[in-house]
Parts: sequence; C-alpha cells; structure tokens
Amino acid sequence: MSLSRPNELEPLESLSMTDRVENILREYFADNGFKPGDQLPNEIEISQKLNVSRNVVREALSRLRMLGMVEARPRRGMTMAQPDLLAGIEKVMNPFILSQDNLKDIFEMRLILEMGIAEFLFARKNKKDLDALEEIVNKQKGLTTLTKEDEVAFHGKLYEMTGNETFTRFQSLLLPVFDHVFKSYYQVGEKDKQKIKDPVSHFDLFMILKKGTPEEFRKAMHKHLGVYYDTINKR
Amino acid sequence: MSLSRPNELEPLESLSMTDRVENILREYFADNGFKPGDQLPNEIEISQKLNVSRNVVREALSRLRMLGMVEARPRRGMTMAQPDLLAGIEKVMNPFILSQDNLKDIFEMRLILEMGIAEFLFARKNKKDLDALEEIVNKQKGLTTLTKEDEVAFHGKLYEMTGNETFTRFQSLLLPVFDHVFKSYYQVGEKDKQKIKDPVSHFDLFMILKKGTPEEFRKAMHKHLGVYYDTINKR
Repeated sequence: MSLSRPNELEPLESLSMTDRVENILREYFADNGFKPGDQLPNEIEISQKLNVSRNVVREALSRLRMLGMVEARPRRGMTMAQPDLLAGIEKVMNPFILSQDNLKDIFEMRLILEMGIAEFLFARKNKKDLDALEEIVNKQKGLTTLTKEDEVAFHGKLYEMTGNETFTRFQSLLLPVFDHVFKSYYQVGEKDKQKIKDPVSHFDLFMILKKGTPEEFRKAMHKHLGVYYDTINKR
Repeated sequence: MSLSRPNELEPLESLSMTDRVENILREYFADNGFKPGDQLPNEIEISQKLNVSRNVVREALSRLRMLGMVEARPRRGMTMAQPDLLAGIEKVMNPFILSQDNLKDIFEMRLILEMGIAEFLFARKNKKDLDALEEIVNKQKGLTTLTKEDEVAFHGKLYEMTGNETFTRFQSLLLPVFDHVFKSYYQVGEKDKQKIKDPVSHFDLFMILKKGTPEEFRKAMHKHLGVYYDTINKR
C-alpha cells in the first residue's frame, strides 16, 4: 500500500487524508482479491504501513463499515463482508438535498424501469402473486381518485413480482421521490390526469398480466403512465 | 437531538455509536429541512448535545462527507451539500465481494433498463448523436465477434442518448459486472450466441432508432439480448 497512488484523478488538495486512505484500502482489497470472510490487516498495521494516524484509518474503515464492505467480528477483528448495494443511495434519498437534475433523473428512471419489467413479470408470475394482486386491484376498483398508498400498493406488488430484490428495493426508494418531483417540476395536475380518454386502470393492467402478452402489458403501462411520459422532452 | 430514538429497528447492541450518531444526524437534517448550503452545528456542539465523544461525531460526519451529503467550506465550517446519488454504489461495485444474489439482480437490472429506454431514445435523439452512433456501428459492421469494448462503445452511446446522466452513470457501473456474472453463473457460451438465427446487430438497432418506432426498437433489442433473456427463469 502506498499513499502516492489515489484512485481518483483529483488535485491532492481536495481529497482529505480520510478520502485517500479510503480509496487506497478499497483498491488494496480489490487488487488482492479480498473476499467476504477474509480478515483485514489490523488498524495499527494499516496506520503504520500508510504512515497515517490511527484516527484517519478508523474514519476510513468506519466509512467502509457503513457501506457494509467490512464488519467487526468477535475474535477475528475486521473482516471483509458482503456490502449492501443500496446503502449509499438509501441514505441520501431526500428530495430536499438532492439536486434538481438528480431528482429529474430519478423521476425518469422510475419510468424507464416500469417499462422494462414486462418480460420478468410474465416469466415469473404465479398464482399466489396474481391472487394477491387481484385483491389489491379489487379494493381499488371504482375509486375515482387513488391515494399515494393505493399507487404504492399496486406498483410495489408488481416490483415484488419481478423476483428481483435489488430492483424491488431500488424502485421502492425511488417511488416517494417520484411524487415530489412530479408536483414540483412538472406543471401537470390532477385535472390533466383526468383529461385522458380511456385511461388504463390498475385492474386493466392486472387482467393483461393474467391473460395477455408482455407487449400488450407494456402498451397498457405506457398509457397508464401517459401523463408522466408526456413530460419527456429535450433536456 | 437525542440518542434514544435511532432510525432503524435494530437491537441497540448491533449498532455502533457511530451508526447511531450517523442515523440521528441524517434524521435531524431531514426533520429540520436542512438544504444544500446550510451551515451545520459544529462538531463540539453536536458532541455536547448528543453526549458522545468528538471522535464518534467526526466519524459520523466523515461518512456523510463520503456520501457528498456534507462538505467542509472555508470560513463556514461544515455545510449541507448536494449528495452524489451513486457514490455508495460505485464504491461497492466489485464482483468479488458482492453476493451471488446481488450479482444476479444487477445482471437482470441491466436487461430491465435496456428494455425501458426506447421512449427516451426516440424523444431525445438528434442528428449529432445519430451520426456518432452511426460511426460506432460502421466500425463494427462485418465483425464476426465483438470485443467487450465494442459492446461498451455501442450500448454506452445509447445510454448517453437518453439524456439522463444518473441513468448513464448507473448503467456504466452495471455493465462491467454484467459480463462477469454472465460468464460465472449462466452456462451459456459463445457457441450458444452463434446459434441464434437472424441475430440483430448493433447496425440493425441503429437503423431502427433512426427510422423506426420505439416498439420496433424494443422488439429488436429483445432479440439482440436474446441469449441473456433466455436465462430468465424462476428464482
């Protein structure tokens, strides 16, 4: 390990000692094929080899621990762990601190993802899931306006039915922001939503998922999210 | 601020002091509407109010700094900043430490995203981008096998053409892992790829993007990624 080759190409002044030690450690683990369960060098060894204070090493390891990349095991000390892929995103997913560009990006990503799941839904749907989805849409049948909870119940169930846990969790992180962004940045309101002729309901989507094809499902989903898709223009 | 109400429902023993202070700070910022530029209470004040050591506060703030959520400004001290949404993911995107489930999830997410971008590509394509894409596919025309760099050049250009920076960066993070996962977990090889009749090439996709419809593009992309889609089954 050496302090003279940081990961990023940034002027050394703008990276703190902790940033640099963190980068070096991650690079060191990757270069030396560290795998979950492998024991790390201890704090004293690291600080001696890098010639930095133990406080700096402790701060850097603390960051890696937050990401789930390392963990403290009884009797073994610090070991490599399996990181939590979405830990970082989850912690910063606050509409009031994210930039406007980030928020618009997240808004669009929800649309991109919702159009892309059809194949997975059809490949993995089963009776149990369809019954649960049917129960959700039956409760909503006939309602003229849906609450945020209604939307989350239906779309959240679809995400779950993809059988992809990371995707499900990722979309669940995006969904609360989606609403905020739509209201804040796109001057479209409830009346615009009501102007759509032959709107596609959650019940319609359920029936297509039960008996239709991925293509029909996608066409219907596109119509269902029509008022959002209409906001897509040059950026 | 108080130490008695942590964010997560976990036995107090499994959260370190740093974890708890980190959670409390994030909650405190959200509850009090802290926005980028707002000055934080200083380290001493935080450690006094929470009745924890300054080292613990420093570690917690260090984590938030890594996420881009706070930054040190000359003469102002620590202030709220606009976080980097993908900072956490970028740091842990190492196939050797991610779990098998996470890796398969990421593999599938690339497929989901690639099927979902058609609307954005067609809404935002312009002459400059299409010319650049044409140059890429012309270089590849007639090649019997494509290198990893060829794939990244083409698909990377498509991601860029969505006009969504977070998406572009996200997909670029997933792409290197994609290859690794496919080779490691799905016993499909080059010969299976060559068994596909009427394969859809990058050039074909380019022509459809230039002159076709989002639906045609998606059908073609589905066929282009056919060997990967065939791996989708119950999990």
